[in-house]
Amino acid sequence: MSHLLSRRDLDFLLHEWLEVEALCAHPHFAMHDRSTFDAVIDAAETLAVEAFADHAAMLDAHEPEFDGTRVHLIPEVKAALDRYIEGGFLGAAFPEADGGLQLPYTISQSVAALFSAANIGTAGYPFLTAAAANLLRVVGSPEQQARYMRPMIAGRFFGTMCLSEPQAGSSLGDIRTRAVPRDDGSHAIRGSKMWISGGEHDLAENIVHLVLARIDGAPAGTRGISLFVVPKFLVGDDGTLGARNGVRLAGLNHKMGYRGTVNTVLNFGEQDDCVGYLVGEPGKGLAGMFHMMNEARIGVGMGASVLGYSGYLHALAYARERPQGRPPGADPASPPVPIIRHTDVRRMLLAQKAYVEGGLALCLYCAALVDRREIAEDDGERDRLGLLLDILTPIAKAWPSEYGLEANKLAIQVLGGYGYTREYPVERLYRDNRLNPIHEGTNGIQAIDLLGRKVTMREGAALKVLLAEIAATTAEAAAIDDLQPHARALDDAVALVVDTTRRAAERAREPETYLANAGAYLDMLGHVVIAWVWLRQALLAARADPAGDGEAAFYAGKRQAARFFFRRELPRIRHWATLVADGEDTCLTMQENWF
Amino acid sequence: MSHLLSRRDLDFLLHEWLEVEALCAHPHFAMHDRSTFDAVIDAAETLAVEAFADHAAMLDAHEPEFDGTRVHLIPEVKAALDRYIEGGFLGAAFPEADGGLQLPYTISQSVAALFSAANIGTAGYPFLTAAAANLLRVVGSPEQQARYMRPMIAGRFFGTMCLSEPQAGSSLGDIRTRAVPRDDGSHAIRGSKMWISGGEHDLAENIVHLVLARIDGAPAGTRGISLFVVPKFLVGDDGTLGARNGVRLAGLNHKMGYRGTVNTVLNFGEQDDCVGYLVGEPGKGLAGMFHMMNEARIGVGMGASVLGYSGYLHALAYARERPQGRPPGADPASPPVPIIRHTDVRRMLLAQKAYVEGGLALCLYCAALVDRREIAEDDGERDRLGLLLDILTPIAKAWPSEYGLEANKLAIQVLGGYGYTREYPVERLYRDNRLNPIHEGTNGIQAIDLLGRKVTMREGAALKVLLAEIAATTAEAAAIDDLQPHARALDDAVALVVDTTRRAAERAREPETYLANAGAYLDMLGHVVIAWVWLRQALLAARADPAGDGEAAFYAGKRQAARFFFRRELPRIRHWATLVADGEDTCLTMQENWF
Repeated sequence: MSHLLSRRDLDFLLHEWLEVEALCAHPHFAMHDRSTFDAVIDAAETLAVEAFADHAAMLDAHEPEFDGTRVHLIPEVKAALDRYIEGGFLGAAFPEADGGLQLPYTISQSVAALFSAANIGTAGYPFLTAAAANLLRVVGSPEQQARYMRPMIAGRFFGTMCLSEPQAGSSLGDIRTRAVPRDDGSHAIRGSKMWISGGEHDLAENIVHLVLARIDGAPAGTRGISLFVVPKFLVGDDGTLGARNGVRLAGLNHKMGYRGTVNTVLNFGEQDDCVGYLVGEPGKGLAGMFHMMNEARIGVGMGASVLGYSGYLHALAYARERPQGRPPGADPASPPVPIIRHTDVRRMLLAQKAYVEGGLALCLYCAALVDRREIAEDDGERDRLGLLLDILTPIAKAWPSEYGLEANKLAIQVLGGYGYTREYPVERLYRDNRLNPIHEGTNGIQAIDLLGRKVTMREGAALKVLLAEIAATTAEAAAIDDLQPHARALDDAVALVVDTTRRAAERAREPETYLANAGAYLDMLGHVVIAWVWLRQALLAARADPAGDGEAAFYAGKRQAARFFFRRELPRIRHWATLVADGEDTCLTMQENWF
Repeated sequence: MSHLLSRRDLDFLLHEWLEVEALCAHPHFAMHDRSTFDAVIDAAETLAVEAFADHAAMLDAHEPEFDGTRVHLIPEVKAALDRYIEGGFLGAAFPEADGGLQLPYTISQSVAALFSAANIGTAGYPFLTAAAANLLRVVGSPEQQARYMRPMIAGRFFGTMCLSEPQAGSSLGDIRTRAVPRDDGSHAIRGSKMWISGGEHDLAENIVHLVLARIDGAPAGTRGISLFVVPKFLVGDDGTLGARNGVRLAGLNHKMGYRGTVNTVLNFGEQDDCVGYLVGEPGKGLAGMFHMMNEARIGVGMGASVLGYSGYLHALAYARERPQGRPPGADPASPPVPIIRHTDVRRMLLAQKAYVEGGLALCLYCAALVDRREIAEDDGERDRLGLLLDILTPIAKAWPSEYGLEANKLAIQVLGGYGYTREYPVERLYRDNRLNPIHEGTNGIQAIDLLGRKVTMREGAALKVLLAEIAATTAEAAAIDDLQPHARALDDAVALVVDTTRRAAERAREPETYLANAGAYLDMLGHVVIAWVWLRQALLAARADPAGDGEAAFYAGKRQAARFFFRRELPRIRHWATLVADGEDTCLTMQENWF
């Protein structure tokens, strides 16, 4: 057992629920079948254990250092990434024509899940590179794709996304980095970027920065933002590396966790000339970025889920082995029992299971939506899948980053004092996971995106599609005796969501009031969605015909975790719904000088 | 503003609520008055800022190191502790006859709160020393008090509490350290102790270990445990230090937080002879320890509250200064506003305020109970106060350690990416606070203590006393228009507690079933108690006659935080109550092989 995530669970989700092999019927994935999917995942798991998990603790203890000239990383990082690139994982989701493996996104996300669980710090570099390359695939010119994207997919160049600035994190409309047109059609970039992961290192021949900047004279706000390619070394027409470009490392940020991924402040054009090349049209920089946003946010949710997942497996292994105490009422002279026998320890384990398996299931479901939308041949179906993805994205980002972290907190608690030491991995996973509610749009921003845009868009079309999907599941579940109470509870929850959304909408004309309880709305809808994900899993488990005790136990575990979620988690939505429906205004009316 | 805790709030709690000056009417505290209390707290705050807060980050980054011979600490620790001892803080709560300041426990806890908020790592050493000295004060012989306790109060010797062993953390009945009687009346101690804070260092002339061990032939379980003094250096009759005793550092534990307090594994009598001196009667070791338990647990809750409090003040200062984004619907060309203007940021700040001020208030209230019980002249009143303290102790330990940590999590979120870096203190406070749900009895153990002992003891006498106190407050609050809804809500909550306790008691004959939802019971009663604490504060605020805008704003803040707690937190108890009342059994029935 690798302690990354349960392969049995992953196979259950991919094949028993999402039926990913069905994608292979489409010409785009026709070169694949179950065996190639399995082979890629097997190879990823082996590599994740051998070359990523092995140095996760060491990398955390020896974070990247800047000596004023170079960034130093422990050599295990490059060794791992060389094998990763050699294995083709960087190009997993890219078309064969671009040098990729052309795997479904669902499979490439499963692979990413394994590497994230093993060592998110090391995995961060190729993840960012793939994201940057993918952006060029969508909005770059053929010339930019050849010059930058192809070497990134091949792993020769790495990439970054340069959005935030010291004064503009969540508020991208306020970025100030300037782009001044030059005679040759390129731009001179000048400004400072903050929180740039992978901003400087020697892991690759070159670093391709994708930079948001404002062309002189552009309008204020988001409509004035353009996207530029800024390579660390200029790239000649023949692909050879030329002069060092004027993008310079100003310093490193020292984080609580996620330490392996170097996080930088970069200066552009401060001392020497910095050349950038416009990608796509002027003023469309954020639009291009947002094109990638759904996938980036699902990726954050996935990472958060599996950091929680790995912690859960460590806590589970510990609880099975650690003798301590006795059940209430037992003879004090009897031998101590493994702590998994204590109900409260089982509660903590079951909560972790419900959170992390639920989060993983939701994120993989979203990844499958990406694939299904990609190959949909019917416009209506493509639209429906897009709506579903739109409304689920803020939930897939925020919910696992909240509850994956909670799972990590519980894992520490199961290990007690040992869990609080760096001799065990659970505290590191907790520190790593604390980033996820912050980056790629804070969870507060996800809540505003959900209630302020996704719920209201096209007269509530996305919410209707989602609730119809949920209703389809409850209709199926109602036919199975054991699941009837869950089905009824979820039907009631859906009715509550509808009513709460209607009551909230009464305040829609005053945006500040309307959005005052956006967080509670996200809490509510997030729990309803995860309850649905659990009902779906319980339904599959109820229908399964398990071969042997191990399989029967697996399905029984799924059903018990569903029961846990329905009994102990779903009822919490009533409180959140009340806050939203009543327009609870304590935070809105709180005055600054009262603090 | 020091960012430790609000002095205005502390004064409000000490004087407007707890009326600590009234204690001075008793001969034991007759040498004090408000001015001496203020002088001690002023001095503590100054020293905490100057000599403790100054090196908190440095100590976290440079944790204690063991070179195989000595433990190395950065020199700032000893410098701070020398000033602390010189200021008399180590003996704050001890009788003047023993060299102390004979301050009420409420005042010495206020002082401790300031040092904890400033630097819990450095403060840990004298706190442990005072706790060990206090144990000797209660159960030691006059000779042991003279030989060990007095030098500890004077700060010449430091102390430790050696309870846990590698195989016995929560389950003290299973400790194996042996004590073999020797001819001179002393014992030879042999065994290994784990998680010993302050177990080895050069900060003091000597270290006095208070060690739980089992005298050969003693019965199994807790009744066979005795308490021993084991000095690092033997102490002669004239108080001079003699030979090195056979207690040796086996290694250090490397923690996620709380790094400044060295945490050790100690071996007793492994290579060389280790002498221990029996304290109190054989077999009464745990009873002696438990005598100190209420105060130790209140101390943990206090630490957890103020770690959260300091994080809150940092987040508040940041939120007032950091411009980012605009209110919903504002012109994008308008300048960004300080983030405190965003409702969701105010939600996070108000939640922190409600958690940390509520936690601090509860812990100070408990400290005041200790004082009031100490000087009570009427047996009935002493008993009543003791019952109140008994039932509140598990809550005062567990609730702040859960919600103080939650406050720290929110403080990071307010600072966003900056909060996730070690350049700001909020992530350190979060790491420090993660210990508190674990040590001094995990929160799971507190829950069992509450539902399994405190609620049932003497036919529910303690719960009755507590609920009567709450009812007295709601009766007062019902007379004030604004507070009527809160008073009604809390009356309903009390009725729910009574009903839930009765329903739970139906399962009392099957201890495992009865205790299966002890955690939910603690969640419920904890929130009811904190709601009461907030109603009490709102009541005082409503009655206050504020002088000037600043004072009016302070009281308005108290009332708004109370409103926050009543509207957004107290309603959560219904869910927990349902779990308990229904005997929700998902965790109880979960099978090990289903995980």
